Amino acid sequence: MTETNLAVLLARRPVGAPLPDDFTLVEQPVPVPSEGEVLVRNRFLSLDPYMRGRMSDAKSYAAPVAINAVMEGATVGEVVASRSPDFAVGDTVMGGNGWQRFCAVPAARLRRITASEVPLERNLGLLGMPGLTAWVGLQDIGLPRAGETMVVSAASGAVGQVVGQLGRIAGCRVIGIAGGRAKCDFVTQTLGFDACVDHRGDLNAQLDAACPDGIDVYWENVGGAVQAAVWPRLRDFGRMVMCGMIAQYNEAPGADASGAPAGPNLGPVVRKRLRVQGFIVSDKGWQRYPQFRAEMLGHVAAGKMTAREDVVRGLANAAQAFIGLLQGSNFGKLVVAVD
Amino acid sequence: MTETNLAVLLARRPVGAPLPDDFTLVEQPVPVPSEGEVLVRNRFLSLDPYMRGRMSDAKSYAAPVAINAVMEGATVGEVVASRSPDFAVGDTVMGGNGWQRFCAVPAARLRRITASEVPLERNLGLLGMPGLTAWVGLQDIGLPRAGETMVVSAASGAVGQVVGQLGRIAGCRVIGIAGGRAKCDFVTQTLGFDACVDHRGDLNAQLDAACPDGIDVYWENVGGAVQAAVWPRLRDFGRMVMCGMIAQYNEAPGADASGAPAGPNLGPVVRKRLRVQGFIVSDKGWQRYPQFRAEMLGHVAAGKMTAREDVVRGLANAAQAFIGLLQGSNFGKLVVAVD
Repeated sequence: MTETNLAVLLARRPVGAPLPDDFTLVEQPVPVPSEGEVLVRNRFLSLDPYMRGRMSDAKSYAAPVAINAVMEGATVGEVVASRSPDFAVGDTVMGGNGWQRFCAVPAARLRRITASEVPLERNLGLLGMPGLTAWVGLQDIGLPRAGETMVVSAASGAVGQVVGQLGRIAGCRVIGIAGGRAKCDFVTQTLGFDACVDHRGDLNAQLDAACPDGIDVYWENVGGAVQAAVWPRLRDFGRMVMCGMIAQYNEAPGADASGAPAGPNLGPVVRKRLRVQGFIVSDKGWQRYPQFRAEMLGHVAAGKMTAREDVVRGLANAAQAFIGLLQGSNFGKLVVAVD
Repeated sequence: MTETNLAVLLARRPVGAPLPDDFTLVEQPVPVPSEGEVLVRNRFLSLDPYMRGRMSDAKSYAAPVAINAVMEGATVGEVVASRSPDFAVGDTVMGGNGWQRFCAVPAARLRRITASEVPLERNLGLLGMPGLTAWVGLQDIGLPRAGETMVVSAASGAVGQVVGQLGRIAGCRVIGIAGGRAKCDFVTQTLGFDACVDHRGDLNAQLDAACPDGIDVYWENVGGAVQAAVWPRLRDFGRMVMCGMIAQYNEAPGADASGAPAGPNLGPVVRKRLRVQGFIVSDKGWQRYPQFRAEMLGHVAAGKMTAREDVVRGLANAAQAFIGLLQGSNFGKLVVAVD
């Protein structure tokens, strides 16, 4: 093989918003699989907000990426060499294969997928971790019921677009929150949400108009001003699915101790019997992946579920694309076409 | 019958902390039961923090007491006249019979209880709404498991004392929080909690010492500084049972909108997968009362569950006792011996 591997390393830990120099693009020899391993050629790399946490060595639910190690990330690709009986050359696989072109990985860490139902990159969004996140969070915490009002922040993003479509399928009135006219139009016209609030405008006035009777299910992806506007509008027995608070991911480590911006007074949690609960899909979510994938492919086949990806070409552009992700400049699920 | 009824009316809506003049003690004729009603002579009246909400006409989960109406409250007493086939003179009953000596009430609103297992007034605490509150909140939200660390605020209070004892029965290490040496001693020596933190001292230092590995279950009765100290100590998958925030019950109506003190930043809810959930026992809790009572009487018989009541003598002292309740001056479940 005369090809080389191309990889993005974490050069140093970002302080605040990541900068291009926090990453290094390197050429390396293509790794050689050991017994039981498979060599994968990554076709698409998923870029997701959780990666900001992996760049920090603050205490978290997962270990940080080491300095000068390849950045973590999910990919879809194809098997180009196999020393495992479980995979054959040409198989389409997904796995946590990192910001790189090639990866030699133990067979047990890969999942074979069918490649025909949806565009390949959609396995990283609608049918990947973000879609699974949406499905698990609604099943376990959001519990949407027909006739309820659901509000989804970051509605055009990887998770939000799936949450809202699942809410519609459950019979909810679904209101998105997104930044700018183009995203809001996509949310209502393509994804079929009932309305979409532009967070660059007057949040309170728009939420008053879109949710005159309050909010039963709020899907939290962002925190900050959006959370503050939603909070007093939660109805009795409301559920707040705490998936992320991207608005503060660039804050100093330990921001939940003394340095964090204050949150809402919790008095209404008692009075309104609210449920505010966080979850992380990697805890046990992947155990339910087969059921999730089957259900989602059913929705896709029935024309009830679609998705939009924002495809950036080339690993050399991955770092800049990730920086933009934390600023909301992507439009749809952000993926990198590796080559 | 030559006796008269004695009743406490709500004279006006308190602004901030209730004052004695917010209530009026009146003598009235003894009510005469209609067909299907029962005349109850109340022996003990329960005083509980939720009553502060009934004095306000701010939007809440229950309607306010009208001005010049008898204050709401649970009582235990005996049937002195019956026009219902379901109750006989001499039966011991509990019900929402108000701050008064006599009450004529539809039979369906009363519950007959056995009077021998515990002192009569204990049916308003350990075996009443506060005990049921503790039991329901732990069953539905707290979900204590053996080996976990549980922290209970207002630990010597009506609900807190039951929560902590149930936590011990579930195999938790249980830390109380109470005000002053006498209450803390009671919590550890009589109730058998593993430790008790005095909130008049240095909360953070005491919690560091008592909960070096953090907190799995926090029972929230108070809010304010105690909540702020507990919040960063919650462990992954921690549960915060939102039962009350008595520290702010005297604040202005609508305190959860603009006027409320800020709460904790919710970022850790995601990262730690916390569950923060409120509940109100009157929603569906009483449907489970028979199971609750049977279990609790089993614990009492086994010597694993006790309680302390703070008995105030005479309806004329009820208003002052309630005012003190909101300031933490009671010691144990506050009840009024009506006569």
